[in-house]
Amino acid sequence: MEFRIIDSISRHTGAQRADVVRGMGDDAALLQPPPGHELAVAVDTMVEGVHFPPGTRPADIGWKALAVNLSDLAAMGATPAWAVAALTCPDGDADFMEQLATGLGELAARHDVTLVGGDTTQGPLSITVTVHGFVPAGQALLRSGAQAGDHVFVTGTLGDAAAALARLERMDEAARHLHARLNRPQPRLAAGEALRNLATAAIDISDGLLADLGHICRASGVGASVRETALPLSPALTQVCDAAAARDHALAGGDDYELCFTVPPDQVDHVAECLQATDDTATCIGRIGAGDRVEVLGADGKAHQSTHGGWEHFDT
Amino acid sequence: MEFRIIDSISRHTGAQRADVVRGMGDDAALLQPPPGHELAVAVDTMVEGVHFPPGTRPADIGWKALAVNLSDLAAMGATPAWAVAALTCPDGDADFMEQLATGLGELAARHDVTLVGGDTTQGPLSITVTVHGFVPAGQALLRSGAQAGDHVFVTGTLGDAAAALARLERMDEAARHLHARLNRPQPRLAAGEALRNLATAAIDISDGLLADLGHICRASGVGASVRETALPLSPALTQVCDAAAARDHALAGGDDYELCFTVPPDQVDHVAECLQATDDTATCIGRIGAGDRVEVLGADGKAHQSTHGGWEHFDT
Repeated sequence: MEFRIIDSISRHTGAQRADVVRGMGDDAALLQPPPGHELAVAVDTMVEGVHFPPGTRPADIGWKALAVNLSDLAAMGATPAWAVAALTCPDGDADFMEQLATGLGELAARHDVTLVGGDTTQGPLSITVTVHGFVPAGQALLRSGAQAGDHVFVTGTLGDAAAALARLERMDEAARHLHARLNRPQPRLAAGEALRNLATAAIDISDGLLADLGHICRASGVGASVRETALPLSPALTQVCDAAAARDHALAGGDDYELCFTVPPDQVDHVAECLQATDDTATCIGRIGAGDRVEVLGADGKAHQSTHGGWEHFDT
Repeated sequence: MEFRIIDSISRHTGAQRADVVRGMGDDAALLQPPPGHELAVAVDTMVEGVHFPPGTRPADIGWKALAVNLSDLAAMGATPAWAVAALTCPDGDADFMEQLATGLGELAARHDVTLVGGDTTQGPLSITVTVHGFVPAGQALLRSGAQAGDHVFVTGTLGDAAAALARLERMDEAARHLHARLNRPQPRLAAGEALRNLATAAIDISDGLLADLGHICRASGVGASVRETALPLSPALTQVCDAAAARDHALAGGDDYELCFTVPPDQVDHVAECLQATDDTATCIGRIGAGDRVEVLGADGKAHQSTHGGWEHFDT
């Protein structure tokens, strides 16, 4: 079974990269890391019923399993190169596999990623992907570099995926947009690479803005304040949610896979310019300060909700 | 949950390697591959009820999940360096996790492997490990290099793990040895490295000798014959099994994690010398020839059983 399915994924990922000495078919893949770079490695598992609802289309499962990993590389400012996938599924449903392969392969081809290894096992549905990328030595974006006074930015818009999860039954135009954000997240790889020499810290938003900005604060030994009115919201989100729900999804909903990053005050004007060559936009949503809390400032400028280190859920 | 468990594994793996720029705790690990080497990457998943019986001790699960992957690196002649582990388990049983961490960490420390990343998820028990190692560029042992006339060797002894699976209830001294072979396989890393410039092809025996030698034959476009009387059997195996059962376990049982490799006739005398500095032994069990079959020769020298490409199970 193994080779058939993995071959099927390979077929959808397009041409093999030149730095793949040997891909599938031996005991291990053989790869050529570029000199002068560090190798960035990330792993994430997606389990049915935990990370995606039963009934999720297999092509979307394949896409998302790779996307959440590429998003981790984006947050490091790394350029992706290779992936290995371990797929566990209840039976050898060839059609299911083929569709999963299509989705994974589509995203891999878009970012020049070659699938170099895999394993398939019988068992409850889950997929674990390990991704590999490069970053010029010493230039990776870490969580630990934020300093008091830095401005806090996020790419794209927030809260769409959480809103989709909250209203899975609707299927109008707005809901379709939200579902696309949930099922086909776009890893912000071009933004991550472009920000290497500008951002002081970065993370991807998988657990929700407050939690993930909290990770930056904890790693950097700082606090942060976020202006509620500055949160970037999609038209689809404001169409299906009232203001309070939209704000909650943007602050605490997970699965955004946007980047949250910090920039020194004298570099803020260069953010737009730096992202010009990419398809990504960024919005300033707050500031890094002293302390260890992530505060949310309301329209009146007062902190009306805060968390310790961003770990608690944001309940209103 | 994530960091606690993964930290726990890290604690058991000993000192971090000097080539780990950043391990756990950011979006991705940052690593420094050595110049002049190829990176070898392998992945394997173990699922409860498929790869190990329910009730297997968690420390053994942790050990074996890493061992089966390191065995793939051994088969390439690679030197291991880094691992990432994705663990899915039904609940946050801290004691179970701690024991699993102990077993994985014990083997990691033995081979100077640093666990640089991980993910933990709630779900049915399974563990996926991805390992990374290096091999001097162009020196990896592949499956595809066997040539007619080469001698076929295996390290250690065969069939012990299969015999343990067949008699899980017994618990005398011999059974304990067989169970240790099943639950704590020893990846033959030193042998793999030592054989880099001697062996023409290599594979690790996970599916069973006939199946895995079949993989070498298929990749190399050759056939092979195995002398039944030459199979290396442990005293424990011959003590608990009759001759026919011992032979079947050695030929078709899986989970040995020994190396099977081929050596040109004029190099055969160097095998023992080459392995002298390792703790591993090797036994010549047959020859590579023309055709595409793996034949088994009985005590009378006649082929009494054969398979096509080694894929079929060996039934007597």
